[in-house]
Amino acid sequence: MMKLPDPVQKVVDELAELPSIGPRQAVRLAFHLIAQGPKDLRDLSDAIGGLAAIKICTHCYFIHQNDDGLCDICINPARNARIIMVVEKETDLLSLENTKKYTGRYFIIGQVPKTGFLEAWQKTRLAALAKFVEDELGGQADELIFAFNPTALGDFQASLLMKELAPLAKKVSRLGRGLPTGGEIEFSDDETLGASLERRS
Amino acid sequence: MMKLPDPVQKVVDELAELPSIGPRQAVRLAFHLIAQGPKDLRDLSDAIGGLAAIKICTHCYFIHQNDDGLCDICINPARNARIIMVVEKETDLLSLENTKKYTGRYFIIGQVPKTGFLEAWQKTRLAALAKFVEDELGGQADELIFAFNPTALGDFQASLLMKELAPLAKKVSRLGRGLPTGGEIEFSDDETLGASLERRS
Repeated sequence: MMKLPDPVQKVVDELAELPSIGPRQAVRLAFHLIAQGPKDLRDLSDAIGGLAAIKICTHCYFIHQNDDGLCDICINPARNARIIMVVEKETDLLSLENTKKYTGRYFIIGQVPKTGFLEAWQKTRLAALAKFVEDELGGQADELIFAFNPTALGDFQASLLMKELAPLAKKVSRLGRGLPTGGEIEFSDDETLGASLERRS
Repeated sequence: MMKLPDPVQKVVDELAELPSIGPRQAVRLAFHLIAQGPKDLRDLSDAIGGLAAIKICTHCYFIHQNDDGLCDICINPARNARIIMVVEKETDLLSLENTKKYTGRYFIIGQVPKTGFLEAWQKTRLAALAKFVEDELGGQADELIFAFNPTALGDFQASLLMKELAPLAKKVSRLGRGLPTGGEIEFSDDETLGASLERRS
């Protein structure tokens, strides 16, 4: 590859390290940014720098900007602290919040590696969850809900964690499985259709 | 969508404006950046800000960091200024340079809109090309090579431009069309195979 000027190569390298951005897309993005001109460059640069002001909730690990260590959800007295939904990612939390049907709290465990084994920082988060349940909920939550992707991997990870965290709650559940609203029976895959039969209500 | 803290929303908006990054990916990227921590945020922010030092070549519109207005290719006396390859994008130029088989210069016209009509800034570039040919090459280049994508749209745009720019050069050509090296005849599409027959050599 023809040598790019250092400042360009640096941006390409930085962008290519981001998830879901490949090396070619990184080059295209760098050229796009240059073409945008100095004002847009400064806007993006400042915006990214501004993320340093974002804090991570010490209870659920979601983001926030509050003065104490808790996010808007954990700080909200209307949210039931005794019901905790375990999600992998912040974006899963956002999608679940969008349903406006959940009034409990969350716990972000982070994306579980494909091996199914948690990394050290994820174990630290689990230890913090256990401590929270111990200190603030008298040793047991009312319910732990596992909201993992309905895939073979997600199911596997959820079942491992459900077993491990079972002592922390009176009830352990996972999201319902069945026909997606708006879907068609004719075009549903066997697994989904089978689950909808088994879990008919 | 649940309201995100302002600094996060700002980054999401900025990223979502970039080509090939959708709004969902922008949110995921923002969370990824936050999770990376302040040092990585500063590195990326600084790298992007550093792009302001990049200049655009006044002859070919490629990027450079030289003191005068010309890029490394246009400044290089070993490159033949009388042969000019018209490309759409910087990344096309990079791919063509990688072949190490071209010793002429380039001219970046910018991605031609799907309508086939050039935008005002692209017409300005064409006027600059005509002026360059007039002032520096005595009114005619030896060859203008059109390196546009071998698609219906690219062919259409190339043929329009070839007609328009024909007076600027003794010879006007476009990249050869035929079987891609390493391809298989059995799996070639009809257009490619037909072109390879018509242009057999």
